[in-house]
Order: sequence, then C-alpha cells, then structure tokens
Amino acid sequence: MPVAIDLNSDVGESFGNWTFGDDARIIESVSSANVACGFHAGDATGIRATCAAAAAAGVSVGAHPGYRDLAGFGRRFIDVEPAELTNDVVYQIGALQALARAAGTTVRYVKPHGALYNTIAVHELQARAVVQAVREIDDALPLLVLPNTVIEAEARSAGLRTVVEAFADRAYQPDGALVSRREAGSVLHSESDVVDHVLRIATDGEVLAIDGSRIGINAESICVHGDTPGAVAMAAAVRKALTAAGVDIDAFA
Amino acid sequence: MPVAIDLNSDVGESFGNWTFGDDARIIESVSSANVACGFHAGDATGIRATCAAAAAAGVSVGAHPGYRDLAGFGRRFIDVEPAELTNDVVYQIGALQALARAAGTTVRYVKPHGALYNTIAVHELQARAVVQAVREIDDALPLLVLPNTVIEAEARSAGLRTVVEAFADRAYQPDGALVSRREAGSVLHSESDVVDHVLRIATDGEVLAIDGSRIGINAESICVHGDTPGAVAMAAAVRKALTAAGVDIDAFA
Amino acid sequence: MPVAIDLNSDVGESFGNWTFGDDARIIESVSSANVACGFHAGDATGIRATCAAAAAAGVSVGAHPGYRDLAGFGRRFIDVEPAELTNDVVYQIGALQALARAAGTTVRYVKPHGALYNTIAVHELQARAVVQAVREIDDALPLLVLPNTVIEAEARSAGLRTVVEAFADRAYQPDGALVSRREAGSVLHSESDVVDHVLRIATDGEVLAIDGSRIGINAESICVHGDTPGAVAMAAAVRKALTAAGVDIDAFA
Amino acid sequence: MPVAIDLNSDVGESFGNWTFGDDARIIESVSSANVACGFHAGDATGIRATCAAAAAAGVSVGAHPGYRDLAGFGRRFIDVEPAELTNDVVYQIGALQALARAAGTTVRYVKPHGALYNTIAVHELQARAVVQAVREIDDALPLLVLPNTVIEAEARSAGLRTVVEAFADRAYQPDGALVSRREAGSVLHSESDVVDHVLRIATDGEVLAIDGSRIGINAESICVHGDTPGAVAMAAAVRKALTAAGVDIDAFA
Repeated sequence: MPVAIDLNSDVGESFGNWTFGDDARIIESVSSANVACGFHAGDATGIRATCAAAAAAGVSVGAHPGYRDLAGFGRRFIDVEPAELTNDVVYQIGALQALARAAGTTVRYVKPHGALYNTIAVHELQARAVVQAVREIDDALPLLVLPNTVIEAEARSAGLRTVVEAFADRAYQPDGALVSRREAGSVLHSESDVVDHVLRIATDGEVLAIDGSRIGINAESICVHGDTPGAVAMAAAVRKALTAAGVDIDAFA
Repeated sequence: MPVAIDLNSDVGESFGNWTFGDDARIIESVSSANVACGFHAGDATGIRATCAAAAAAGVSVGAHPGYRDLAGFGRRFIDVEPAELTNDVVYQIGALQALARAAGTTVRYVKPHGALYNTIAVHELQARAVVQAVREIDDALPLLVLPNTVIEAEARSAGLRTVVEAFADRAYQPDGALVSRREAGSVLHSESDVVDHVLRIATDGEVLAIDGSRIGINAESICVHGDTPGAVAMAAAVRKALTAAGVDIDAFA
Repeated sequence: MPVAIDLNSDVGESFGNWTFGDDARIIESVSSANVACGFHAGDATGIRATCAAAAAAGVSVGAHPGYRDLAGFGRRFIDVEPAELTNDVVYQIGALQALARAAGTTVRYVKPHGALYNTIAVHELQARAVVQAVREIDDALPLLVLPNTVIEAEARSAGLRTVVEAFADRAYQPDGALVSRREAGSVLHSESDVVDHVLRIATDGEVLAIDGSRIGINAESICVHGDTPGAVAMAAAVRKALTAAGVDIDAFA
Repeated sequence: MPVAIDLNSDVGESFGNWTFGDDARIIESVSSANVACGFHAGDATGIRATCAAAAAAGVSVGAHPGYRDLAGFGRRFIDVEPAELTNDVVYQIGALQALARAAGTTVRYVKPHGALYNTIAVHELQARAVVQAVREIDDALPLLVLPNTVIEAEARSAGLRTVVEAFADRAYQPDGALVSRREAGSVLHSESDVVDHVLRIATDGEVLAIDGSRIGINAESICVHGDTPGAVAMAAAVRKALTAAGVDIDAFA
C-alpha cells in the first residue's frame, strides 16, 4: 500500500532589502509552500519570485496570510474586528493569487501565519472570520489546521476541507496538543529525534507524547521550518528519511 | 444618433479611521469608480464597502493602483525599479479583484493614481511596467489614459485597449495637454464653466483651449472629483447637464 | 478660594492627506493638547503644525503615544513585548520632543492613546513598560491617568507624578469606573448633561454615578473630544460654563 | 606629527524580525556609527540596542535619517516637499536622540541615508531642507558630506560644520566625483586595493583616480560597509592597516 504525506514550510517572508529564510533550498525539500502575502512579511517582487520557484519545482503554493504587522512579523496578537480580519485575509489571498498567476501557478490552499494561526486555534470570532474569508475567495480551497482546534471545527462546519498538519520538530502533550514553547523539551533539536518523530507520524499515524504515551494523529501534512541554515538541512534530512522509508512526498492540494 | 460618455471618479481612498471623499454620493453621479488598492490609500474593509456600493449602483469598478506611499497619498514620484512596479501593480489589482468579487462585482479596467498616473504619461520604463502588470493580470482590461502620452502609446503597442479620458475641471493648452496646476487658470471653478467644458467634450468632441482655440479630443470618459463637498455637487451638476443634453452616462467597460 | 482645572484633548491625529479632528478650534478651548506621535496617527508635518498652534495659544503640549498601528488608529490591543513597548514609547516621545522644540514649545506630560491607554489600566507588564519609557525620557514628566488603575499604581510606585483625569462625556459606575461603551447611557450627549457633569467634577470633586449615587473624584484634568464638529462645540460650551462658574482653565503642567 | 581619521559605517538597519548587517562586529572596527532612525530601516528596539553597543565600545553615534520607505530601504528617490522633508528628518533625529539617551549616549552628528544622501548632493531644495532640519535640532551637529556637493555648500553657508568623507571601496573620477556604480571598476573588491586606497586618503590626503591621476581629498572620515560578512572583514582589515601605519582611528565628533 503506497504511503504519502505532504511537507509544508513558510516561505516568501523576505521584505524589500531584508531577506528571511532560504526559499530556494527549502523549496527543494517540501511539496507545499506557504507564501507570505504582504501583511506580516513579503513584498510583491519577493512573493512572485517565490511563487515562480515553487512553480518550477512542482511545489504547491498556499496563501500564508497574517495580521497587518510588519514590525511584529505577524507574531503578536492583534484584537482586530472579525469583519476587518475577513477583509484583510481576502485582500491578502487575492494579491497572492494574482502574483501566483503571473508566476505561472495558482493558490491551492490557505495556512494562516504566526499569531493569527495560534489565535484561531482558540478564538471563535477570529476563526470564523478566517473561514469566511476563505469561503469568499473560493470554498474549494483547503485550510491547513492544527487538529482539535476551534478553527478546525469552524472550517468543517462551514463546509471547508481541512487538512491536519503535524510539526516536525515539536513535542506533543498526551492530549495531542503541542507542548508550549515556554516549557523545556518543547522543540526537538536533534536530527535523529526529528526523523523518528516524522517517520512515526507518516507511517504509523502516531506521535510519541512527551510522557512516552502514544497518541494517534491523522496528519496529511508535516510542517518543517526553513528560516535558519540548520532548519534547511533538517528539512532535507526529513525528506530523505521519508523517501528512504518508502513514503512519497506529495502535495495534498 | 445616441451619444454616450462615461464619468469616472476616484473612490475608496479612506484608510482605517480616516475618511476621504464622499463615496456614497459620488457613486450616484458616475458610471465608473476608480477604487484605491491599498498602496496610496484604501484598507480592505473600506475598499470592499466601496465595491459593494458601486455594485449596488450599477457602477463599473476599476483598479486605481498607486505608489506604495500612504504618507504621501501616492502623490509623490518614487523612482521605483520597473520590475518592482510591475509586481506592485499586479499585487494591488489582485487584491482588489478578490474584494470586488466578495462584494459581488469584478474589476473592469485600470487607472493608475496620482504621481504614478502623471509619471507614466512621460516615463517610458514606468509606463511599460504598468502595461506589463495589466497584461499579466488580464490583457482584456482597458487602461484609462491621458491622450498623446507615453502610456497611451506603450499600452497600444502592447495590444491593450486604451480609453482616453478628459478632465471636467481642467483647462487645456492649445496642443491638447493640460495646463499645469502651477499656472493661473489651470482649474475651472464655476459650475457653468465646468458644464460648458464637459458638454463640449461629450457632444462636440472638442475642448476650448486656454487661448480660445478649439482642439479635438476623442474622450470616452470624463474624470470628475469627489473629495470635497463642492466636488460632489459639481459631479451631480455635470451628470444632470449631460443627461439634459441627451447624453447617456454609460460605463465604457 | 480660586478653583482651577485642566482641559485636555487629543490632537495631531491627521496623517498625510487625511485630516482628523479640528485641531485649530479644539486648541481654543483646552489647556493641554495630547499630540499624536506618529505610530497610531500623526505625520511629522502635521504634528509640528499642531505643536505650533498649541504654542501660539499658550496650550501645554503632551505626548500621546500609541501602538504601532496606523490601520487600526491605535484602537486595537496588540500583544507587544514590554521591552519593545518601552522602546516604541521612547521613540515616539523623542520624535515629538524634537518637533515641539522646532515649533517653539516643549513636551510637558504624557498620555497614552486608545487601546494602549485602556490596556495599561489593567495590564501590569504593559503598564510598567510605559512607566519605564517615561522614566527614561524624563522622570519629571507627569502621566495622565484614569484613577484606581494599574498604571496609576505603577507610575506612583516608580516615583512618577500622576495626574488624574475625568471624562467630560462619560457616565460613571458607582465604584468610580467608567460605564462601558457597550452599555446604554455610557456616553452623555446633551450639552446640559455634559456641563452639569463637568461642573460637578471641577467644583465639587464629585460625579453623579449612573445609579444616582455621588462618588468623589479628585481630577486635575478633564478630557474633552475634538474629532467631530459637535465635539468641538461641546468643548467650547464646557470651557464657557467652567469660566462662568469661576473655574480657571489652567494646564496642570 | 600624529595622524588621525574617523571610520564610519551604517548600522541599526535591522527591522523587527529581519536582521541586516553585523552591527556588533562592525562597531569593533569603526569610530562613528550611523544609526538608522526608523524611516528606511530600524525599529526602536534594534536602534536602542545598536546605540548601547556603540556606547559600550566608545563609538560615536550619528543620526542616519532617510526617506520614509521601508519597502525600498530608502534607496529610491522620493519627490517629497522640502518642508515635509525637514519635518521628517527632525522627527527621525529626535526619536534617535531619545533612544540614544536611554542607551547612555547622545547623537553627535548627522549623515543622511541612501537615496536621500545621493539626492542632496545635487538637489538644492532637498539639501536645504536637510540643513534646516539639522539647524532646528541643534546647529552644533556636524553633517557628514561628500565634498564639492550642493549639500556641502548649503550646510556651510548656513553655518553648519561639515565633515568630508571618502569611501573605502569606491573608485574616483579625475574630478573627484565617485565613479558611478553602473560603470565597471566603480567598486574596489580586493583587500589590498581597499587598504592602499584608504592609506593614501588618510596619510597623503589623496586618492588615485580611475585614470591613474592623483587628486587631493581632505577627508576627516572614511565610510566602510558592514552589511555582508566580507564587508565586516574588510572593515577590520582597514582598521588594522591604518593602525599599523600609525593612523589613529578617532571619531570626529
């Protein structure tokens, strides 16, 4: 029986003269590229170049909208009105769609960024606002989500396709939630730990929680980071290990 | 023989808590609404509301992209690289397209804003950059232009449809160019002067130049302003006078 | 025995081509002008012009720093790191100090804006961050505060002078807190209600709470709004009524 | 006879999550740090950290104001009104002064950035606007200038102290102007070429022009770059060579 999984990573997060991450190399390892849309990061020229690189590599382009906060890189919660959030997300996805088309590809899914991603896991009104934006853009666009969250529930009840993702380098609690970054052991640093973790997700549908218990996770995609040289090498190692284990790296969208 | 002309005006130029112009009332008078796209003015919520108002009034929505310069309202020349300008314009039009669709309408034409509009009348590289952006978005989108300009020539040679516009309240030189705003008499202030000027354009295809000579102008659209209470009343007077003279007010796109 | 009180209002909140409020007229009525510093509103040219108008009218200039959020006019909570908030506030006050000096005056106090003002009433870390910024700029600068708040306590324990303000058009709860804007009766609209309220604060040191009970308030300043034509007239009426009652309108700083 | 020269470099040009240059290491080599002020680059927290590092190293802090253009890193000419430019520069220097004081140092000179630096070499109105800003802030602040430029003349005629700088890695024309970056040979790449060039400036008061002729230059400061790993090593080599030749590296201010 063939086994396949998607690998996704955040890209297009340079801005003007400032570069961030190594898009060219991370795109070699993933099957889905979450492309910044200009509100937390990304200028039009960099976004387009990233879309073109993804298109050339056969990598699926997703929209990665965030709060309007360049100074905070979208990593700070903003108490934006839901209706405004919907419109800000529509604006960002529309802009990316145009640049993706100009680069010869299309936007195939949506994954919110940073503080917005974290907020909609628990904040009903902002979660609904994001769901509303995706429906207005195209209700066939899948949404990448953390499982068992408000956004997953809201998206499903609105009829959107949700795609569950796991994180390649994050430890899990016994209830399936991520261990908070503020706690010891929350991030896996060694290549062997990350590879073991990813293989277990992709082949067994399980993660080993931080207390050693085994929990099921039905992830269609695994998120890898690309914003440091070490992260790029880790992503390549993840890809290599999955391929060696007979797991295909395939975009879900 | 039925005579028709388009009236266009800049709208959607509020930003966050700041309002600009009286979109609701100007939309009652025009057939085409040049909607700001967020770089010189316009936030997503205001842009969408303006698109919805245009849609409700049967008014055609056009993209009104500008330089990335909120502090300068897009009225200052910026020496941006042509390739970046192309991408910035693609980004802006794409964002507007998504908001227009969410509001039940579509983007039907493009009219650059402010300093960008003035620059591409004479600046070959920036003119080509704008033409390239429109082609990449949709080469069937017409471009509103000042006649006998670099942008008109570049757009035509690239196969884009150009739509010539005249200005309801601007005086013309004998060679058909606008009298510079720095010179006396450049702007028509009285309602009767503006109405006479507009009727001559719409029914005779002529303007009376500032020296009294008559010059031909083949305008499909006339630009009226809407950013002051007086301007809104002037636009209404223009519409009323044209209608009384048997001229239909019809969108060109 | 002479009685005096300060009247303060938010000014300098235009931005580029967008105007907000009627600074020239509100400055005629107040003794203290809370001048925006560029993060939620205010560009350098408008800030300077407002400082010059305040200087010409003998009105005291205060710094009115806010969250970095032009699109939200500083009215949305942002979960900024305290150390970054301190630096953002230092930056804003320093910028205003330079423009105030260029306009012939100086910054005499600090009153945070909008969501930042509301947040530091209850949020210990952000309150301390603002206190730290004021101390680093000049520990002799007084801070305008809502009484019985976290910011009042933090500022006092750090040795800053706090100046309690009341609001001319807001209803109070029996415990001295403001009635939430979400509840009926939270804002006083009639001129006679506002004048009665203000006179009671200035001459009796009391407010009538929404349930009719009388509560003491030791306000050295009263905040009036200036962002609508009605508000400007209300501010003038407040000044006139206080003067007629023998209350001097004097800046506290 | 002791010989001394200043070395200056642009720093503080990170923004939020984006880093730029290696401030810590470049500060080890220079005597004057041109610190970004937030309009083309630099957020308050990064600016302050850079000022603190300069203070710790005994390096003089200068203001490095630019056009309001984060997306363009201040490298694009903007046709800003002179009065607005004056106020924008006052705002930026004031903000930096406050952060420098908080970091235990003070702003000792001004060097405009990027396109503004290039523009005021030739553009009379913008040059005067910058001079006016410096005078309003503190007419004892020296201005770093390219020799034989409009800004040098305007600053001198206004009574400001001007400090002439040379560039460590740029070729010169026989008339003393820089060879345009668009031409071959405009930038010196080898360490030995740069060191020879710098030693000639510091010890002989001369540069060898691109045609081999010798031209006098009375530079009090030499600009080195710090935004690449190679540039940081080059700056260190320049410092070492000057010191070995008996030239002291001393701040001019």
